[in-house]
Amino acid sequence: MLRFSHRVERDKRVTAHVALTSRAFGCRGMYYSGDADPGLHRTVREVNERWGGEFLIQHVPEPLQLVREWKRKGKVIHLTMYGLPLPQVIDEIRRDGLPKLVVVGGEKVPAEFFQLADWNVSITCQPHSEVGALAVFLHELLEGREFGLEFKGARLRVVPQARGKRVEETR
Amino acid sequence: MLRFSHRVERDKRVTAHVALTSRAFGCRGMYYSGDADPGLHRTVREVNERWGGEFLIQHVPEPLQLVREWKRKGKVIHLTMYGLPLPQVIDEIRRDGLPKLVVVGGEKVPAEFFQLADWNVSITCQPHSEVGALAVFLHELLEGREFGLEFKGARLRVVPQARGKRVEETR
Repeated sequence: MLRFSHRVERDKRVTAHVALTSRAFGCRGMYYSGDADPGLHRTVREVNERWGGEFLIQHVPEPLQLVREWKRKGKVIHLTMYGLPLPQVIDEIRRDGLPKLVVVGGEKVPAEFFQLADWNVSITCQPHSEVGALAVFLHELLEGREFGLEFKGARLRVVPQARGKRVEETR
Repeated sequence: MLRFSHRVERDKRVTAHVALTSRAFGCRGMYYSGDADPGLHRTVREVNERWGGEFLIQHVPEPLQLVREWKRKGKVIHLTMYGLPLPQVIDEIRRDGLPKLVVVGGEKVPAEFFQLADWNVSITCQPHSEVGALAVFLHELLEGREFGLEFKGARLRVVPQARGKRVEETR
């Protein structure tokens, strides 16, 4: 996925939530534009070390160029409250077999993103959260398979409980 | 819903995302504990004025007391990566006809919440985001009906587009 226009001070925690949500819901990694942020890379590294997997994070100075290059091999989905409602387009997106780049913005997304995207998709037409929109989109794209994902090399694993916390050390 | 332990500096934007996500997905309002935050109330008021509805926001100094009182009339669902996976419990929760309080925490949720909750529910057992967890939980609870919600008295309404933005003034 691509998180557009990260600003260290304002977005620190929200962008970390975007990264960890995309990891938990099976994305391979996150590109982000705007400010380069070592704290974000550290957060992702620590989560990978503890909880497994090889989620990638990479700063990109030119997000529009990334999107144009991606379109040579795959499709681009832009999540925006102005797009077509998810239920109208999700079947078509699921059927498409090409690699997918999911884009979420901050405040001001340039008009070019709306033009370059293969799908502009809304998760309700109300203002809420790029994290919430991303989670629901990926949940529907995966048809709930995020609940069965394995993260290789995890040091810790949660054992689900009706009450309380149980965490196993796996190595 | 109840957002536990808000801290103005650290959580300002994430708690605003929690509030707006719960509004967009049909919650009646949000209680929050921790720091009282006038900026949060202002954000909610502005969104209600523009986009409609009567989403409520209220600071509560004693969240455990709120949860205990709620349990006299309804049920409590606590979203946590340590709980039972959503697919195991969602049918039971949907069938339950009582008013529901959904609780999401910040960093450290006291053990009492796990004990008081009628359901501790995980949206994957990976660390990610209370915003993402809340969105997926409410999406499943509503079975997608959030896409058809009406917000009364809205001044603005999005007209979904395949490309670009279209917003109508409704009054």
